[in-house]
Amino acid sequence: MAQLKAGYLFPEIARIRNAHLEKNPDAKIISLGIGDTTEPIPKPITDGMVAAAAALGTKEGYSAKGGYGPEAGQMELRKTIAEKLYKGTPITYEDVFASDGSKCDISRMLQMFGSGRKIAVQDPSYPAYVDSSVIMGHSTGFNDAVKQYENITYMPCGAENDFFPDLSAAKSAELIFFCSPNNPTGAAATRAQLTELVNQALESGSIIIYDAAYSAFVGNPDCPKTIYEIPGAEKCAIETCSFSKYAGFTGLRLGWTVFPEALKFSDGSSVRQDWTRMMGTSFNGASTVAQGAGLACLTDAGLAAMGDMVAFYKENAAILKRTWEEMGYKVYGGTDAPYVWVSFEGRDSWEVFTEILDKTDIVTTPGAGFGPAGNGYVRCSAFGSRENINEAARRLKESFSK
Amino acid sequence: MAQLKAGYLFPEIARIRNAHLEKNPDAKIISLGIGDTTEPIPKPITDGMVAAAAALGTKEGYSAKGGYGPEAGQMELRKTIAEKLYKGTPITYEDVFASDGSKCDISRMLQMFGSGRKIAVQDPSYPAYVDSSVIMGHSTGFNDAVKQYENITYMPCGAENDFFPDLSAAKSAELIFFCSPNNPTGAAATRAQLTELVNQALESGSIIIYDAAYSAFVGNPDCPKTIYEIPGAEKCAIETCSFSKYAGFTGLRLGWTVFPEALKFSDGSSVRQDWTRMMGTSFNGASTVAQGAGLACLTDAGLAAMGDMVAFYKENAAILKRTWEEMGYKVYGGTDAPYVWVSFEGRDSWEVFTEILDKTDIVTTPGAGFGPAGNGYVRCSAFGSRENINEAARRLKESFSK
Repeated sequence: MAQLKAGYLFPEIARIRNAHLEKNPDAKIISLGIGDTTEPIPKPITDGMVAAAAALGTKEGYSAKGGYGPEAGQMELRKTIAEKLYKGTPITYEDVFASDGSKCDISRMLQMFGSGRKIAVQDPSYPAYVDSSVIMGHSTGFNDAVKQYENITYMPCGAENDFFPDLSAAKSAELIFFCSPNNPTGAAATRAQLTELVNQALESGSIIIYDAAYSAFVGNPDCPKTIYEIPGAEKCAIETCSFSKYAGFTGLRLGWTVFPEALKFSDGSSVRQDWTRMMGTSFNGASTVAQGAGLACLTDAGLAAMGDMVAFYKENAAILKRTWEEMGYKVYGGTDAPYVWVSFEGRDSWEVFTEILDKTDIVTTPGAGFGPAGNGYVRCSAFGSRENINEAARRLKESFSK
Repeated sequence: MAQLKAGYLFPEIARIRNAHLEKNPDAKIISLGIGDTTEPIPKPITDGMVAAAAALGTKEGYSAKGGYGPEAGQMELRKTIAEKLYKGTPITYEDVFASDGSKCDISRMLQMFGSGRKIAVQDPSYPAYVDSSVIMGHSTGFNDAVKQYENITYMPCGAENDFFPDLSAAKSAELIFFCSPNNPTGAAATRAQLTELVNQALESGSIIIYDAAYSAFVGNPDCPKTIYEIPGAEKCAIETCSFSKYAGFTGLRLGWTVFPEALKFSDGSSVRQDWTRMMGTSFNGASTVAQGAGLACLTDAGLAAMGDMVAFYKENAAILKRTWEEMGYKVYGGTDAPYVWVSFEGRDSWEVFTEILDKTDIVTTPGAGFGPAGNGYVRCSAFGSRENINEAARRLKESFSK
């Protein structure tokens, strides 16, 4: 813990936002900061959730789903996830573990793998990978000169390499974090790129921790929605995903992680079996009401409603992307992801973040918060009401047109 | 992970139960095994929960409580817990962190404290303390001769010491797990005993991790419901608690852990601040619907309903206790806890467990599953319908009368 250089990114940003509000009590803040959903949960899904909640008040309902559930999740939910989201892949329901979210699973995974592992991450990347690794003792300290933690391999992803890293840096890594569509850059990896990643991991004996939290936003048919579309991935990859961004479950807490049966440690023992033991010891199942809501998500009506919601946020992303482009900025992401990654080449991203907040009362996220290669960029999240997104576009144009 | 000698206790027992059912498909199994609540959640509480769920379908409700909540829990819930359950103690709402349960918090705590800590536990005790410690690298291996993990101090608690340990063994411990009312022995520590514990921790610089999951069952006015009734505890103790056994939230997942402001590491830095960072990195808040239900628990109607539920389970415990006593067994616990701890002195507890299952189709928990000093006992949980408890009593009398 003592090695961590700063507070976790998003609480830090919330602190700065609150300080700004204190100084400017009349500011009408618009948050394009943390990727937090804003639209209500669609009715077919809330109906399922309300029914799950009400059932806990009845003798029958409580005895069916009221007590301790299996740590891996309700069988019906695991089966439905496997059937609706992993059809045509080698994944079975026994590989699917429901949980209270990817962030929590990532921390538990790093705990399971034990300290001192060689870890590689995309740079920039979702800060929980590195921060959880540091807490779990996978790093030996912070190197202030390069703004990187020791013993963690940072693989730069920028405009110069089309946001896909030079994987050769990760050849000796035991664990490779890879997020696609990427948070924060919005880049979705293609089938060819993921095949390269999988092949290298198979060759080097690395385990990929594949974060697919934004896979619902993939529109490009050349970009897989799950890594298990790539042959061999079931032997080298864990995939973690979530209902948060699909269905507005950020506060409800429901995700899942896939540990394929074929994934083994170098001694041939089962990773899935260790995960089962890990979950049994440190977790007691996702909230039964959240699991009921998750099941409702995967009905035909639920899937359709989620599709509408994702389309809505994608339209927001398109508006933001267009806005920055029209102002003359280089912009990445925003087509297969809810994040728009804006280049302010040569500038310090915290400074740009502050300037945007001061001039427009809009909260973004400074790219450097995701790793040193994120400096020079800011991330704009497309989660917001249409009204707020349009108003944000107006304010940005007023103050940041080149 | 590799150091763990066996699967986590309760999934193991579920496995044995299922095997028994396969061999005896007509068996009418009664579970007095895992301490899992069986009665529906009372109406004033499900009403609150249903309202919280339904609100997520509305624009207003979603924007109030739908997105990422604070990792430490909704302010209103933290304030209400502090006000209703810690009045008259030094604890403020800022010290209270809501979560998805004590078991999960225990694992995160052991992660936060870093590996290689000197840990002391009551023996027997809730298996998550030791298992999570082993996973986190606080032990160096298992000593088969004494059935204990190395580098963990086991403090035996048995009839011979009235289930309160000789604390001198824990003088060099950095972390002391203490559970009262105790799981599995059912013993509730008195004010004098807890004062001894707190004073020693203050003197030795140990941190107590006090598990108060069963405090609602305390009837004896000489036994505190929270360790913060003891002067100085706020300087040496973390307290973890849960709605699970109060209100039937085992599947809903809502608990809390108290990190008092006055609790410092030996270098004077704040433990609460590290916990805040830990939760920010590895957790995203308890499910908002569970938090809504938790708030409903703490209204006057909710508190009254929880009181009725606890009284119901206590009556179950009294029935079980009386049953064993009438058959001539020495029985402990069961008055200030939902657990009845039955002595089978000189016998192997797994053997007794199997005999009970084979003869009566009743699942109990073998004492040895909680640590070596638990051998010679079985734990009977009082969670069950009255009908099942009475039927269990009848079957036990039929097969186990001395």
